[in-house]
Amino acid sequence: MQEQPLSDITVLDFGQVYNGPYCGFLLAQAGARVIKVESLIGETLRSRGVKSTASYPFAVLNVNKESITLNIKSTQGQALLKKLVSQVDVVLENFAPGTMARYGIGAKQLRACNPQLIYASSTGYGNAPGPYRDFLGMDITLQAMTGVMSITGEENSTPLKTAAAFADFIAGTHLYAGIVSALYARKNSSEGASVDISMQDCVLPTLATALGSYYLHGEPPKRAGNRHPGRSLAPYNVYVAADGHIAIIAIREGHWRKLCTAMEKTDLINDPRFKDFPARCKNMQELDAEITRWTATRTRAEILAQTQAHGVICAPVQDLIDVVNDPHLAARGTLKTSSHKHLGNIAQMQTAIRFTDIEPPELTQPPELGANTRLVLTELAGLSNEDIDRLYQQEAI
Amino acid sequence: MQEQPLSDITVLDFGQVYNGPYCGFLLAQAGARVIKVESLIGETLRSRGVKSTASYPFAVLNVNKESITLNIKSTQGQALLKKLVSQVDVVLENFAPGTMARYGIGAKQLRACNPQLIYASSTGYGNAPGPYRDFLGMDITLQAMTGVMSITGEENSTPLKTAAAFADFIAGTHLYAGIVSALYARKNSSEGASVDISMQDCVLPTLATALGSYYLHGEPPKRAGNRHPGRSLAPYNVYVAADGHIAIIAIREGHWRKLCTAMEKTDLINDPRFKDFPARCKNMQELDAEITRWTATRTRAEILAQTQAHGVICAPVQDLIDVVNDPHLAARGTLKTSSHKHLGNIAQMQTAIRFTDIEPPELTQPPELGANTRLVLTELAGLSNEDIDRLYQQEAI
Repeated sequence: MQEQPLSDITVLDFGQVYNGPYCGFLLAQAGARVIKVESLIGETLRSRGVKSTASYPFAVLNVNKESITLNIKSTQGQALLKKLVSQVDVVLENFAPGTMARYGIGAKQLRACNPQLIYASSTGYGNAPGPYRDFLGMDITLQAMTGVMSITGEENSTPLKTAAAFADFIAGTHLYAGIVSALYARKNSSEGASVDISMQDCVLPTLATALGSYYLHGEPPKRAGNRHPGRSLAPYNVYVAADGHIAIIAIREGHWRKLCTAMEKTDLINDPRFKDFPARCKNMQELDAEITRWTATRTRAEILAQTQAHGVICAPVQDLIDVVNDPHLAARGTLKTSSHKHLGNIAQMQTAIRFTDIEPPELTQPPELGANTRLVLTELAGLSNEDIDRLYQQEAI
Repeated sequence: MQEQPLSDITVLDFGQVYNGPYCGFLLAQAGARVIKVESLIGETLRSRGVKSTASYPFAVLNVNKESITLNIKSTQGQALLKKLVSQVDVVLENFAPGTMARYGIGAKQLRACNPQLIYASSTGYGNAPGPYRDFLGMDITLQAMTGVMSITGEENSTPLKTAAAFADFIAGTHLYAGIVSALYARKNSSEGASVDISMQDCVLPTLATALGSYYLHGEPPKRAGNRHPGRSLAPYNVYVAADGHIAIIAIREGHWRKLCTAMEKTDLINDPRFKDFPARCKNMQELDAEITRWTATRTRAEILAQTQAHGVICAPVQDLIDVVNDPHLAARGTLKTSSHKHLGNIAQMQTAIRFTDIEPPELTQPPELGANTRLVLTELAGLSNEDIDRLYQQEAI
């Protein structure tokens, strides 16, 4: 691979917040020309204000994109979009269900303008018929609906979400996957396609372990804190260290023996309470107490060094300061310090889709709202400066 | 799109547990021929026993695959793999770092056998140089290392993982994305590629909201239970209902007004405590108490009907029994009842990468260990029955 894989592709990215914009970010970092299409006040994250919790996500998810404004509610804006669509490969959006179709610019209409177009949409529950199709979906409601919350948290506490917005990001990744699959197919068939990603579908497989326990025992497992969701692997937990917490897991008998060796407690290997997985699961409390006696007096770094030296699977519970300063993420080029005009120094993120053959494009700053409108409309829609001025006056752009 | 997008592609899938096998599952459901390559005792999930929590995940992630056995530790097995590789498009694996290279069958060696090969690997921390490169990684340790645990849980409790194995599955999705990107690039260049997916990289973007709060305020946000990770949106929480819990979120002023209308509490719209996002965040406790007074006496179904009728973003906290019987997942064809020989009726999962142009392939049962060894070695390696018998005797297959 000598050049970026998608360097011959142009995308109109109508993404909002995380799901769509993350897909556009992956496309841009795979070499596509990504044109972010925004309303006249800017997409949701941008319009939450320059000094808000939205500033950082907006900055990292919209690098290497151009920005144009386009009012999809105006007839001139809709006509303009149909013109642009004939010059691009992909339109992606994660609006509320049916938004684009309501304005006469849905998959059907845009694919009629360009039969090779890939029209890609992600919503909470997908576009196929079904009782939830028209429901709005956000990360928290998807974690509720999919059962993730029901299995997360301590046994006797309330259902809990994770603060990682994984429903949004796993959907954005599937959206990218669907788009590139359709681009690949188009190389053979010269036909476009419509990609239909449901956040609910994307989250479902992540329940695999808990569903495995449900089907084995006939009832849903109780919430298990940091233990194995089906309580059928041990050691598997987060343990107190002298300066925080540390996660340790043994998935094979060999890992358990290595952990005993690392802890200098080799007598535990032959202890009948811990002799195999069933015994260790049955005596999980005592097992965790034994491990905690060792971890509690050592720092996370000491435990990590000792366990890694013995081939034990282990990691410290890092906080966000640890993470943005993580030496591995820096060495790998995944995090890179950059200056943000409102936030000061921030850690920008590089794409997680990496090839050993070629480095991804350097990260840029996100575009100002509409910074590329005039250029893009001249290049792709063949408009004159006068045409463009008129569209501005009509509030179509 | 008239046929499955990857119907001209053949894959050797060395996937283990969730990350690699999920990638192979997505490839199979996109139409690729996926040959699962297993050790003589079967891959990790299979070898945990036919009646274990691993049975269900194994069954759903290995549909539409063939299975062959191949002993990568034997010289005959290694030679055989090099022969097979000349006939396939993709090799994917998520072994411990460096495993394939140690046996002389890493990216470099296999790409030398077939310059058009896509060699795709996913590990905890990726193959690029860096201090963690050789660390083993599992879902729980990645949730620790990436900071996910540090922001998940109740404010005064310990750091907590989510029971959804999302680090594994989001990496498997990126692995698929990298493979298909490389296949697309190959159409232009006729060159192979090496895909290098780090679970750590893939999880990082999901912290966007919490990192946004960190960069805005200069310190990591405290754990916030089910509230907004930066406590800068309200309402945003999980509320008690008469028969469980329900998630409600308002991301625009309009959503808040709609919620007040749905609750028949329109006086709250002009209440100075709740007049805008800053006010509602400041008075979050009182706000949540007002909402709870309404939700606590109603069932989840009543609340959902009432909020959806008013355009409020809301979802019940479903448990696993609700989820496997979810009417929308059934209507969409995402879950389908199938008979499993040890578990009885189970809900099989269809791919989340969906096209409105074509249905994904029907789901099959997962293959028995090595069920296709003879056929595949005859077809792709041109071996005779005698050759194959000898390889069995040598324990190479």
